[in-house]
Amino acid sequence: MSSTSLIPQGTMVKRVAVILAGCGVYDGTEINEACSVLVHLSRAGAEVKMFAPDAEQMHVVNHCEGKPQTEKRNVLQESARIARGNVTDLAKLDVAAFDVLIIPGGFGVAKNLSDWATKGKDFSVKSEVEKVIKGFHKAGKPIAMCCISPVLAAKVLPGCEVTVGHDCESEKWPYAGTAKALGELGCKHVCKNVTEAHVDKKNKLVTTSAFMCNAPIHEVYDGLGVMVTEVLKL
Amino acid sequence: MSSTSLIPQGTMVKRVAVILAGCGVYDGTEINEACSVLVHLSRAGAEVKMFAPDAEQMHVVNHCEGKPQTEKRNVLQESARIARGNVTDLAKLDVAAFDVLIIPGGFGVAKNLSDWATKGKDFSVKSEVEKVIKGFHKAGKPIAMCCISPVLAAKVLPGCEVTVGHDCESEKWPYAGTAKALGELGCKHVCKNVTEAHVDKKNKLVTTSAFMCNAPIHEVYDGLGVMVTEVLKL
Repeated sequence: MSSTSLIPQGTMVKRVAVILAGCGVYDGTEINEACSVLVHLSRAGAEVKMFAPDAEQMHVVNHCEGKPQTEKRNVLQESARIARGNVTDLAKLDVAAFDVLIIPGGFGVAKNLSDWATKGKDFSVKSEVEKVIKGFHKAGKPIAMCCISPVLAAKVLPGCEVTVGHDCESEKWPYAGTAKALGELGCKHVCKNVTEAHVDKKNKLVTTSAFMCNAPIHEVYDGLGVMVTEVLKL
Repeated sequence: MSSTSLIPQGTMVKRVAVILAGCGVYDGTEINEACSVLVHLSRAGAEVKMFAPDAEQMHVVNHCEGKPQTEKRNVLQESARIARGNVTDLAKLDVAAFDVLIIPGGFGVAKNLSDWATKGKDFSVKSEVEKVIKGFHKAGKPIAMCCISPVLAAKVLPGCEVTVGHDCESEKWPYAGTAKALGELGCKHVCKNVTEAHVDKKNKLVTTSAFMCNAPIHEVYDGLGVMVTEVLKL
């Protein structure tokens, strides 16, 4: 344990599984969200293992233009860019070996972990992702999700409470329509600011809006810090 | 300005140019370093613009295996993954429009901004990168570099002082040989821990080791925080 860690002596080290979905906001995991989560987990003294599906990305987006390009990339290999190589095939995730599950956001969640991006509220969650979320939930182990990831919880854990930020569209909240769609999926949306997280105690589910809000990066970082703190407490 | 910004009222907003070199530690910019720098700059209230060369990457590395793969990628387009699309061709960087220059690390610095990765101390810095570094230096504007990036300063600003961490190889400092190579380039290497930065006041150059150290991510984040604070002070 590092000398600057804030974890008190004698505290059990939390084993955290983080699911990535590629590398880049438009076709993978939102990079800044993933890195912020990793910093907060590191400071809390958590033991982190990253996972991603060993599957082809839905598509590859040129992030300068925001348009798809004719190329194929593998979700696991691209996720390894964030993980500095330390990422494992999601199919090998053993729920019993972890205390906490965290899924950062980015369109990869809506494209590679589910088909939310193309199907909206009639979407389905990839079976290996659904299996893992259900596994943690049934075992009473806490789960944290941010940005667009709460749509996975809304589908897999009916009736849960989540936040994706605010529910009225504005320059600050360009994706606020998602809140309404979550309601249609049968879960309860709770409005929160970007530096806050919502805790659904019954389902042990912690969510925060992150880049659903058009906020300065340090506010997204701080909101993710609250999310990590809360999920490690549960 | 955000309500949680730490910048005092009336302080001039610093305009910071950040140079990226792709997206991923083995063939581009080290993602966690770039994101940490962006969080610290955001909290300090800096105005950030990101740049990258509009050029083909030296190669593309499969980050699961650490081996090159037969594929071509563009440095600017891949950098846009970190920058969420907001990145400009480095050729358009106008030194007069900025107060501070920051170059995060990662092998992209040694592969796409220079040829250090293949030529070692006989390397050369890409001309558009050299021009920018010289431009900031001649204008008396501060520059910050981390991880492997200080090799660029060592070449372009002869006699400068830099740190890449420690100079004795160990599990914690796997790339310590770089310190010796920097000495051979005619600059002075100063040993520093990962949570510290070295300030060369004469050259207005701030450096920190970042992932040259095998340290927990939050310590790398903290060292980059010191680097950003120091370079904004100069």
